[in-house]
Amino acid sequence: MQKLNQNPNIVLAEIITIGDEILYGQVVDTNSAFMGAELGKIGIKVKQITSISDEATHIKKALDEARTRADVILITGGLGPTKDDLTKKTLAEYFGVGLKLNEQSLVDVTEIFQRYGREVTEINRQQAFLPENCLPVRNVLGTAPGMWFEVDGKILVSMPGVPFEMKRMMTDIVLPRLQQHFGLPKINHKVIMTIGIGESFLAEKIAAWEDNLPPNIKLAYLPKLGSVRLRLTGLDNGTGDLETEMQQEVDKLSQLIPEYIFAYGEVSLPEAIGHLLKEHYLTIATAESCTGGNVAQKLTSIPGSSAYFKGGLIAYDNAVKVEQLGVSETTLQTFGAVSEETVKEMAENIRQLLKTDIGLATSGIAGPTGGTPEKPVGTIWIAYADAHQTIARKLSYNKTREINIEYTTMAALNLVRQSLPEIFRIG
Amino acid sequence: MQKLNQNPNIVLAEIITIGDEILYGQVVDTNSAFMGAELGKIGIKVKQITSISDEATHIKKALDEARTRADVILITGGLGPTKDDLTKKTLAEYFGVGLKLNEQSLVDVTEIFQRYGREVTEINRQQAFLPENCLPVRNVLGTAPGMWFEVDGKILVSMPGVPFEMKRMMTDIVLPRLQQHFGLPKINHKVIMTIGIGESFLAEKIAAWEDNLPPNIKLAYLPKLGSVRLRLTGLDNGTGDLETEMQQEVDKLSQLIPEYIFAYGEVSLPEAIGHLLKEHYLTIATAESCTGGNVAQKLTSIPGSSAYFKGGLIAYDNAVKVEQLGVSETTLQTFGAVSEETVKEMAENIRQLLKTDIGLATSGIAGPTGGTPEKPVGTIWIAYADAHQTIARKLSYNKTREINIEYTTMAALNLVRQSLPEIFRIG
Repeated sequence: MQKLNQNPNIVLAEIITIGDEILYGQVVDTNSAFMGAELGKIGIKVKQITSISDEATHIKKALDEARTRADVILITGGLGPTKDDLTKKTLAEYFGVGLKLNEQSLVDVTEIFQRYGREVTEINRQQAFLPENCLPVRNVLGTAPGMWFEVDGKILVSMPGVPFEMKRMMTDIVLPRLQQHFGLPKINHKVIMTIGIGESFLAEKIAAWEDNLPPNIKLAYLPKLGSVRLRLTGLDNGTGDLETEMQQEVDKLSQLIPEYIFAYGEVSLPEAIGHLLKEHYLTIATAESCTGGNVAQKLTSIPGSSAYFKGGLIAYDNAVKVEQLGVSETTLQTFGAVSEETVKEMAENIRQLLKTDIGLATSGIAGPTGGTPEKPVGTIWIAYADAHQTIARKLSYNKTREINIEYTTMAALNLVRQSLPEIFRIG
Repeated sequence: MQKLNQNPNIVLAEIITIGDEILYGQVVDTNSAFMGAELGKIGIKVKQITSISDEATHIKKALDEARTRADVILITGGLGPTKDDLTKKTLAEYFGVGLKLNEQSLVDVTEIFQRYGREVTEINRQQAFLPENCLPVRNVLGTAPGMWFEVDGKILVSMPGVPFEMKRMMTDIVLPRLQQHFGLPKINHKVIMTIGIGESFLAEKIAAWEDNLPPNIKLAYLPKLGSVRLRLTGLDNGTGDLETEMQQEVDKLSQLIPEYIFAYGEVSLPEAIGHLLKEHYLTIATAESCTGGNVAQKLTSIPGSSAYFKGGLIAYDNAVKVEQLGVSETTLQTFGAVSEETVKEMAENIRQLLKTDIGLATSGIAGPTGGTPEKPVGTIWIAYADAHQTIARKLSYNKTREINIEYTTMAALNLVRQSLPEIFRIG
């Protein structure tokens, strides 16, 4: 069905989350952010997010209000035996229908129990009974099926509040069905990951390119901890090959800012560095002072990182820098622990000690105390060393301890990308 | 003013957040969770959270709806020059009043600009103009003042969406004023931090104590990554000394579960371990395999941790375990890297290498790959060593890589607390 007003760009949605734990601040509502972003990607705009209590009257009131402003209503929470299936019962009442057994849902619930070698309980069997007027939405990861209702041309979908169950349902079933139902045009996305340049400087650098984007391609800036994601959204207007058209724009952009792009697509910096090292059979070791293990932690957060990460030393105390890492006492006394000289020795020495291709080091004052007039809090040195070169950079941050550490970690990983010989580069 | 129905326990609130960035999922709404939790602490119950778009008509509609169900309406967002002060203008329109200059707000704005050595711009001067019928709420951290309205016995407060500005306003001004306005009884909180026991087992162990709590003291379970926070909320009913009464209940609880309590008050486990080590002049070093630096990272996330954390080795590769950490090749070959024998050597050796009082080690299979039938993914060993003893524990998790690493880190830190000689204990 096409939307009545024939303008597919303004399908509006409302998200309703049910559960006291969100209202009382015991849980942060991350589900709605996921749904809002995913709906946006297929051209559906979220008009309101409403979080309400576990009460039937409140749910019905919220549904009435939502129907006055939205074409699509997505509900999460209030399903499952511990919630007494409140949402399901309330929806049946709201629509004035009974519950009937859905065979497929019963098979699904039974299968989940068999997987854990248990018998289906009567309570869980009840979960396969759904309002007569709904289309079930399969839940392959849990026992509470979703429900899809169509009323007066509006779509209402009820899903569990468990994030991974909801996400799987959205991706596999709800989003494609919404696209089809509203006859939404094909939308494409291309993501370009950048690092090392702030949002406003980036915007300036690519302003001319952005201004010349075709009218069916839009750009969004999505900044996060020192990295800026650029997302192109293309609307298929039937005049050409959208994929080719978008790739051309990405190519133009790549030529404008090659030094800041670390990946194409939704890839984190530790993942991108991991790919790069793995692809070229390079190994790495870390020597960290102020980051206290955070660089190693980020590198090893990636599955399979043992292929390139051999290990690291956290040389917090100066004695450890000297005795374990072999930094010269003269260097430490002459230049201090937070200096170009020290951080270079750290990177070079860890590389030799752990017999890796690359050594990466950090040393600085994360704060909140420990600063001096010459080296205030946020003064940080990072260094990269390989068989042919050692490169150091000075950073100056003026943030909290936590953010100083995070930014330094990102800058250190980025230094690997920037310092690798040309033939190993991504860009 | 006392609430009309004279039942101070049911003051109801609605939170309205204004801004497309939340609707489109670019930002997760953490403000509402903070406000919900803080209101709960003074006995105000959040009935609904409504996130709406940056549009005057939508704001007015939401206000109308909120007034039908709440005594208190807290609004965040839509203030400040970049937002065109939409919320302020809309509120003036909604109440049919004009804007007038608030001298104190102008002084505050001017002061903030002077701090950065800049002149107040005309746009920022406009921020000191507020709706005639409001009481200004000072913003000591930013240029947009908050606004407090009283209409038909209901309270409506508008605050900036910048989290740290909003939080400061809530804590310093809004919460105390709400308590006073509604004549809310004094409420006290006591938080007890536990680790090493799941919520349901904990609930069983303390069921009798919980059942016997005086009617004016309530208990809440707040679980988070392997740790469970217990929060007692006491209502001053004027019959005795609430503080003493609550402390007695905490004391009883302490005797029931001494082994699981790691702190009193809102203290994280790394902080608690840090206090403990610092207090007793003890030093620690880490030798990590599967946690990849996460234990050290957590320890060094605490300001001042250099007093007790000397450093650590991340021995990801077995060669690093042998060459840098001195784990015997025979041990590795006979028992494997993930074994009691290896992890004990790791803890003992890092302690000797870095000359610390305590050595802490982890070795395991974080996943998603690398498991075997005998040692499936999630098989993890941790060990603690001091001058007198070495203690190892086997863990078995069946979660994602990220959660396996987080749980192992918490368990390792907890092992320090559990293994320290009696005289150093907290409990």
